[in-house]
Amino acid sequence: MQYRNNFNSTMLDKELFSAIVKEKEERGYYNLPFKDTTAFKEYAATVKQNNVVVIGIGGSTLGTYAIYQFLKHSKELTKELFFLETTDPIDIQSKMKNIDVEDTLFIVISKSGTTLETVALFKYVNSLVKCDKHNTVVITENDSKLNTYAQANGMKMFEIPKNVGGRFSVLSAVGLLPLAIVGIDIDTLLRGAKNVHDSFFEESDLEQNDDSLSIKKRVLKKARFFAEYKNSFNINVVFSYSSRLEGFNKWYIQLWGESLGKLDINSTHQGLTPVGIIGPVDQHSFLQLIIEGRRDKTVTFIKVNDFHCDLSVPDITLKGLEELDYINNIKFSSLINEQADATIEAICSLNDIPCDVMNIDDISEYSIAGLMYEYELLTSLTAKLLQINCYNQPGVESGKKILKEKLLKGQ
Amino acid sequence: MQYRNNFNSTMLDKELFSAIVKEKEERGYYNLPFKDTTAFKEYAATVKQNNVVVIGIGGSTLGTYAIYQFLKHSKELTKELFFLETTDPIDIQSKMKNIDVEDTLFIVISKSGTTLETVALFKYVNSLVKCDKHNTVVITENDSKLNTYAQANGMKMFEIPKNVGGRFSVLSAVGLLPLAIVGIDIDTLLRGAKNVHDSFFEESDLEQNDDSLSIKKRVLKKARFFAEYKNSFNINVVFSYSSRLEGFNKWYIQLWGESLGKLDINSTHQGLTPVGIIGPVDQHSFLQLIIEGRRDKTVTFIKVNDFHCDLSVPDITLKGLEELDYINNIKFSSLINEQADATIEAICSLNDIPCDVMNIDDISEYSIAGLMYEYELLTSLTAKLLQINCYNQPGVESGKKILKEKLLKGQ
Repeated sequence: MQYRNNFNSTMLDKELFSAIVKEKEERGYYNLPFKDTTAFKEYAATVKQNNVVVIGIGGSTLGTYAIYQFLKHSKELTKELFFLETTDPIDIQSKMKNIDVEDTLFIVISKSGTTLETVALFKYVNSLVKCDKHNTVVITENDSKLNTYAQANGMKMFEIPKNVGGRFSVLSAVGLLPLAIVGIDIDTLLRGAKNVHDSFFEESDLEQNDDSLSIKKRVLKKARFFAEYKNSFNINVVFSYSSRLEGFNKWYIQLWGESLGKLDINSTHQGLTPVGIIGPVDQHSFLQLIIEGRRDKTVTFIKVNDFHCDLSVPDITLKGLEELDYINNIKFSSLINEQADATIEAICSLNDIPCDVMNIDDISEYSIAGLMYEYELLTSLTAKLLQINCYNQPGVESGKKILKEKLLKGQ
Repeated sequence: MQYRNNFNSTMLDKELFSAIVKEKEERGYYNLPFKDTTAFKEYAATVKQNNVVVIGIGGSTLGTYAIYQFLKHSKELTKELFFLETTDPIDIQSKMKNIDVEDTLFIVISKSGTTLETVALFKYVNSLVKCDKHNTVVITENDSKLNTYAQANGMKMFEIPKNVGGRFSVLSAVGLLPLAIVGIDIDTLLRGAKNVHDSFFEESDLEQNDDSLSIKKRVLKKARFFAEYKNSFNINVVFSYSSRLEGFNKWYIQLWGESLGKLDINSTHQGLTPVGIIGPVDQHSFLQLIIEGRRDKTVTFIKVNDFHCDLSVPDITLKGLEELDYINNIKFSSLINEQADATIEAICSLNDIPCDVMNIDDISEYSIAGLMYEYELLTSLTAKLLQINCYNQPGVESGKKILKEKLLKGQ
């Protein structure tokens, strides 16, 4: 008998780890925590404008927005950051109405350099204000046509390395430059990511056995679970207990959906569907579906240990509502975390909904960057186990081609 | 042989329709389009404050926010509307920082009257400003403790009927009062919903056969598809091509998730997972997952025919980017709709992703209310076919109980 097969048995942890170490040699995002930030900080120090508008879409904005939205009310930021990212005319108009274009730095971001939405929006901005080297900076690939434009106009350009994909680019110039300009500590961002990097790549604890999982062990374990149960649990809910994580949720949805929705090596459609919800608001919405709905979801809770905020429910009795006086004097930060714990307990007690809980320390650069870097690792690991290419997005090309034909025909 | 069974074969369209007509006798939401709006308009005319803050969560805010966010940049509104809905301390602080509480009307909304988040937030507001009949109005059930409070303080109260559930309440006082106060035409809202109501309940075209489906036929057909293919397609994506529909998407997620995530009459977990995404932004995120990912999703596109906005891509050539000059002079409203059409064509050409396209006329009260009422009908119909109770949410009670015990213990 001759026998051939393309069955691929599941990799052991050691094999999986080795595959990632090998991938790290060619995929740039893994090493972004070691980036020299001098150029970003030097440029940031020269910016005089009070507003910063990022023109970009998808991977060019989601990560930056996630970090900015997480931190903006907890830090004394020096400038305000806006994002122009859609072709919706009312959205464009309403955003520009609130921005003094004469006092604005424009950061045009496109990896390919020819993203349709980005160029359309930048042309529109050009009709409102003269864009030159004094108010415009460009972030793109070295050999892109957007860089040709920047050079022709003497504009400063920061590079996106070829081997860093858009949705993995938040710790490159894409995120670091605008964040540095508005006053976010980008060195601490990188330290937060580096901590996760080191735990994953440098600790050799795969054989240890303790209850509190190291970062390395938990991402390996989670990736394995998501891949092995991909058919039973095809939906992965991130349930973040802070409105400060709404941007993170959106970034997660792109990272997870666009990286893992692929044809695998056997040309089979793979794909885990990301859902991002916010507590306690979505206790009054999506939670019912988790608790009583079909058992097709995993749930990852994210809690913030310390909000650095003492706001409390005041000791006030409202006539008729005395029965609720038990919430008096509770800090809102305790209340939201107790709400999270109660929901976690309710879900865990059902015993048939896979869930885990991530506690991040606080609202800080260090915490958010660590969380994001861990999710990037988790995505890469899961993709390896699903035997798909994590870093491309071939599915979106056909729509782009159809659009171009339509528009050319309409001319 | 004796034979007993609880097999329930699928209802015919006529039977399904009859079941809904019967349900309409007891469920209040169906008849909200016929509501007399005089009291809301009269109260609205008396409001002097420039800011309106709705304090509520879930069904008390999502529908109002959906309509307000849809219309606010296209209408000359007289006041600004804010929503206090979460216990996240940083969210509370950052929102209140921008509101002059002395120039604010507070609308406290809770159907049960004892929603924990709402009462906690209202207590907090009480510590900032004296709340009395001059600046506070209450929307709740007639016999709730929040109404006791309102009466004790001589405050105006508007009623939520017992038989109108929170997530179906947008066309009751819950939505109509705040929307009327900020200057939205609530009579036109109701007319938009009534148009859908009449098409569904009064047209007798079930037997007709034409290509352009009437509202009645399309909601029946869609509900049947969602129910019959619930196991193959357990995810229902709404892909809205306008940032103005972001609030609608959130409202849809609550309506669909909380109504359909239930144990059915055979105690089996049922549940269709709603996902809301926005075009063109999510062409750069979730679209890859739709195109190449697992075939577990239906997709409903929503397009806006007329944005009433002439904003165009200016006729500007950028050196190096000349190849993109084919987008010059295109109206952004045409561009976004061409983008939608290209994505629709790309997905339809695959032939194995069920999808449909809804075109709403414009950014108006009439359009958004019709869309929302149609979605409510669709939800009720799908629930009937799934043999579940569309209107309760028993799954969230256990978490509430655990929370109360935790908080009482902590005192």
